[in-house]
Amino acid sequence: MSRLFSEPLKVTAAGRTDSGVHASGQVVSFSTPRQFPGDRLETALNAILPLDCSVRDVAEVDDRFSARFSALERTYIYSVLNRPQRGALFARYAHHVARPLDLERMRSASRHLVGQHDFRSFCVSPSATTVRTVKRLEVGRSGDLVRIAISADGFLHHMVRIIVGTLVECGTGRREPDEVAGLLHSGDRPAGGVTAPAQGLCLAGVRYEDYDSFAEPPLYRPAPALLDGGLAFP
Amino acid sequence: MSRLFSEPLKVTAAGRTDSGVHASGQVVSFSTPRQFPGDRLETALNAILPLDCSVRDVAEVDDRFSARFSALERTYIYSVLNRPQRGALFARYAHHVARPLDLERMRSASRHLVGQHDFRSFCVSPSATTVRTVKRLEVGRSGDLVRIAISADGFLHHMVRIIVGTLVECGTGRREPDEVAGLLHSGDRPAGGVTAPAQGLCLAGVRYEDYDSFAEPPLYRPAPALLDGGLAFP
Repeated sequence: MSRLFSEPLKVTAAGRTDSGVHASGQVVSFSTPRQFPGDRLETALNAILPLDCSVRDVAEVDDRFSARFSALERTYIYSVLNRPQRGALFARYAHHVARPLDLERMRSASRHLVGQHDFRSFCVSPSATTVRTVKRLEVGRSGDLVRIAISADGFLHHMVRIIVGTLVECGTGRREPDEVAGLLHSGDRPAGGVTAPAQGLCLAGVRYEDYDSFAEPPLYRPAPALLDGGLAFP
Repeated sequence: MSRLFSEPLKVTAAGRTDSGVHASGQVVSFSTPRQFPGDRLETALNAILPLDCSVRDVAEVDDRFSARFSALERTYIYSVLNRPQRGALFARYAHHVARPLDLERMRSASRHLVGQHDFRSFCVSPSATTVRTVKRLEVGRSGDLVRIAISADGFLHHMVRIIVGTLVECGTGRREPDEVAGLLHSGDRPAGGVTAPAQGLCLAGVRYEDYDSFAEPPLYRPAPALLDGGLAFP
């Protein structure tokens, strides 16, 4: 953006994507110093962005809109390749778990996490407030691929990856699904599951109240097909 | 294999994968100088292979079996990302075509290619015989992803990529579907379509007559779900 307008510009992203984490539905807001038609901006940005980053849509919004602070809900999808042998292709996009995962156990565990809770034991470097509302937490399988989709009003640092690590421990039988309730109440990070690796994680979509009208890509793409077996193909 | 057995070993692969081409269902045959249990071989090979290569299964076969010469049918799947903006993720696994593809036109064109034909105009550096039988050629769409699945008794060098290039030209309106019949009969390579890039191509499966009994992975995996929207997740 700074290069395009030949002056420093600030951009605000809806969700954090740590190194190795992907995004198929990231939203970024910014103010431009002068008018620039949205479709030309899309083309101009894609021409100078590195190949592993692509602008899907550009829309004009209200001055008060912030991709980060106006977000009502974010959806992350975590992909696990669940079979004895590692994957040769797409290894950068899924976490390999060799032991068979019992999805019913993972779903039992996930029910303890849905709703408003203090997620202090499911994060690193807690923020001032660690209460978040998980609105949806689904676990699905398509062949060797297990997907975990999680929507919440906000996420703490590493929260999705720790939740996934905990669910995987429940799925392999290493941990009892009902322990998860206790983990939440303990407020004690070391009691939580291991942090699942970054590469399986993808920010799939962000929802905003006032901008449902341009709600298709990129503003709200929770990729419902994901749990039915499709791979998010951003 | 040579490292594992501490002596030079020859392996024979079912299908060629040029640089940039992927395989989710490659089959490789070899003779070992001494007995080695199949499951241990799988583990041992995966431990020393680079991470972008994974052994899915090992099975004992008849002495006369050759992954290459015993193959009855090979299936390749070609993936096209069909939307205005390029893809940030999986760019190594799909060819980006910005102009909308008309699948009906692609299907009309593909009907000329099914059956036994001389595919001289659809290859580079023709072999002694250029007659091949295309048993199946399907074009499907799932969202922005267009997939072309092609099965044949054998393929000439660059044959799939030239067929795909030609079908894409028909899909964008650049070429008439019925021209394809003439291209076949002309036997003239420069008349054929452009060669589609390597990265969209994946060898999805190989079929053998005598080994239907262990026909699941890896011996025959034409990945039927691919055209229903799933991505081959090898």
